[in-house]
Amino acid sequence: MLPKPLPTYVKAVEAAGVQPQPLSEATTGVVWLDPRTPDALAEVLDAHPRIRWVQLPFAGVDAFIPLFGRDDVVFTSAKGAYDEPVAEHALALTLAALRQLPVFARRTSWSSQAGRSLFGLRVAVVGAGGIGRAIVRLLQPFRTRTTVVRRRQQPVEGAERVIDVDAFRADLGSFDVVILAAALTGDTRHLLGAAEFAALPDDAVVVNIARGPHIDTDALDHALRTGQIAGAAVDVTEPEPLPDDHPLWTAGNILITPHTANTWAMAEGPLSARITHNAKVFLKQEHLGRPMEWEGIVDQQAGY
Amino acid sequence: MLPKPLPTYVKAVEAAGVQPQPLSEATTGVVWLDPRTPDALAEVLDAHPRIRWVQLPFAGVDAFIPLFGRDDVVFTSAKGAYDEPVAEHALALTLAALRQLPVFARRTSWSSQAGRSLFGLRVAVVGAGGIGRAIVRLLQPFRTRTTVVRRRQQPVEGAERVIDVDAFRADLGSFDVVILAAALTGDTRHLLGAAEFAALPDDAVVVNIARGPHIDTDALDHALRTGQIAGAAVDVTEPEPLPDDHPLWTAGNILITPHTANTWAMAEGPLSARITHNAKVFLKQEHLGRPMEWEGIVDQQAGY
Repeated sequence: MLPKPLPTYVKAVEAAGVQPQPLSEATTGVVWLDPRTPDALAEVLDAHPRIRWVQLPFAGVDAFIPLFGRDDVVFTSAKGAYDEPVAEHALALTLAALRQLPVFARRTSWSSQAGRSLFGLRVAVVGAGGIGRAIVRLLQPFRTRTTVVRRRQQPVEGAERVIDVDAFRADLGSFDVVILAAALTGDTRHLLGAAEFAALPDDAVVVNIARGPHIDTDALDHALRTGQIAGAAVDVTEPEPLPDDHPLWTAGNILITPHTANTWAMAEGPLSARITHNAKVFLKQEHLGRPMEWEGIVDQQAGY
Repeated sequence: MLPKPLPTYVKAVEAAGVQPQPLSEATTGVVWLDPRTPDALAEVLDAHPRIRWVQLPFAGVDAFIPLFGRDDVVFTSAKGAYDEPVAEHALALTLAALRQLPVFARRTSWSSQAGRSLFGLRVAVVGAGGIGRAIVRLLQPFRTRTTVVRRRQQPVEGAERVIDVDAFRADLGSFDVVILAAALTGDTRHLLGAAEFAALPDDAVVVNIARGPHIDTDALDHALRTGQIAGAAVDVTEPEPLPDDHPLWTAGNILITPHTANTWAMAEGPLSARITHNAKVFLKQEHLGRPMEWEGIVDQQAGY
C-alpha cells in the first residue's frame, strides 16, 4: 500500500484475507492511494517488474495516462464507486446555478426574487459513464428533457436522445443546462470555449463536475461577465487549484467548489469495498488461475 | 381582479368564459393578486357583501387569517399549485447546506474538501401538505430514511414513519436534516428554538421553505455560531425581510434566499390554471346550483 498505508484501507486489504506488505522485489500488487503523484508510481512500476495489478484511488485516471500501455499490468480505478455522490454534487450545483444561490450567498441584505426552476428544462449531460448515467437518474423527478452526449450512439435510460459531440456543438442553442460529466480526452479538451458560450442561450447555466480542461476558463469568465450565459458552477478548474487572484472567483453567478464532489470521507466506504473486491480477484487469479471479474478495470488505450 | 388587473391573469379569467369587471356593488367574485395587503381585501369584503368567492394568490394564507370565519365567502388559495418548484427549492437548499455551498460561494481562494452527501441520511420533513409530500418524493432517489412530522398519524408514501410534533421534539437527536414545510399555526411557531437546536446533532442542517416564525431567529444564529448545528438554509425569516444589519447574514454556513422558492415567473402557469379552474367552478355554481370541486379551498377554521 503506497505511498503509505492508511488504517482504513489496510483493513480493506485484510478483508480480502491478506496483510499488506512493504514494497519489495516480491511485490506483485499495489494499492496506490495518492491521486496526485503518477511519477512516483511510474518509478515503482519501473523498479518492480513483477507488479501485475495496480488499484488507483480515483474514478478519473487521466493523471496516470503516461503510465498506460503496459500489457503486463492491470490497472483498476474507483470508476463507478463514487457515481452517486458525484452525481449528487452535479445536481446540487445545477440547482444552485439555476436558483442563483451563489449570488444570494454573497449578499448581506434582502433582495428581489430570482431564479429558475429545473422542472421541464432541456438538459445536456456530456458523458455516459457511471456518473453521467447517475446524473440522468437524479434528473428524472424533474421531468427534464435530457440529451446525453457520448461517442457510442446507444440509448441511455431516462434520456430523450443520445447525440455525439458534433451534434451537440450544432445544437447548443437548444439547451437550458449543460452538465459536463465526461472523462478528459483529446476530444473533450476545451469542449466549451468562446464559440460554444456564444451559441448557448443567455439564460443557460453550465456545470462541470468532471475535469477543468473541458472548459476554456477565460472564455467562461468572459461569458459570465458579458451575459452570454446566466451562471456556472464548477467543481474543477483549469488551472487547478484556481489561483487566488483569478478573475473567475468574482464573475457574477459563479460557484467554485474545490474538487469536492466526492470527499475522502464520502469515498471511504466505496473505495474500501472496491479494494477488498479487487484484492480478492487478484489473489484468486494468482492462486487458482481462473478468469476473474475486476471492478473498475481501466481501458489503457482509451485512457479511462 | 384586484388590486389591479394583470394581463396574464385577465387571460386566465377570460379562459373561463368571462371578462373581469371593475369592482362594483354587483361584484360576487374576486381574484386577489397581492399577497401582502390583507387589510385592503378586508375593506373590499366589508364594503361589498355580495362577494361569495375570493381567489388568493399564494399557497400560504396566514396573512389572511384575520379575514377568515366568513361562512358566506369561499376562499381558494394557490395551495398545491406550487408544490413542485417549492419542493425543488427545499432540495436545493438542503444540498447547499450539506455541501457547504454558501461557504464556498463566499470564498475567493481554493480550499480543502468539505461537505456531506445526502445519500442515506435521516431526514425529518415537517408538514405533509402538498409541498411536504413533494419534498418526500424528491428525496427518494437519495434513499434517505425519511420521517414525516404531522398531526394526523396517516402514512405518507415514501416516508419510513409519521410522527407528531411531540415525538419529533423527543427524537431530535436522530436527524441529520430537518426540513420545515408546514403551514404556520400556533403549534409550529418557534418549533425550532434554543432547546431544539441544542438537541440536534452537531452535524445536522436545517432548512426552512415555509414561514419564518417556525424558527426562533436568535436561537438559530446562536446555534450556527456555537456549532450546535452544521448549517442552515432558509427562504423565509423572522422578521421578513431580514434587516440589513442582522447578525444572521454572517453566521457561518448560512444561506438566506429572499422568499424565492416560487417566483412570480414560476407561478404564472400554475396560478393561471388555478384561476381559470376556480372561475369555471364559481360560474357553474352561480348558474346551475350544482356542487362543485374547488381547487385549493381554504379551511378557514384551520387557517390553511
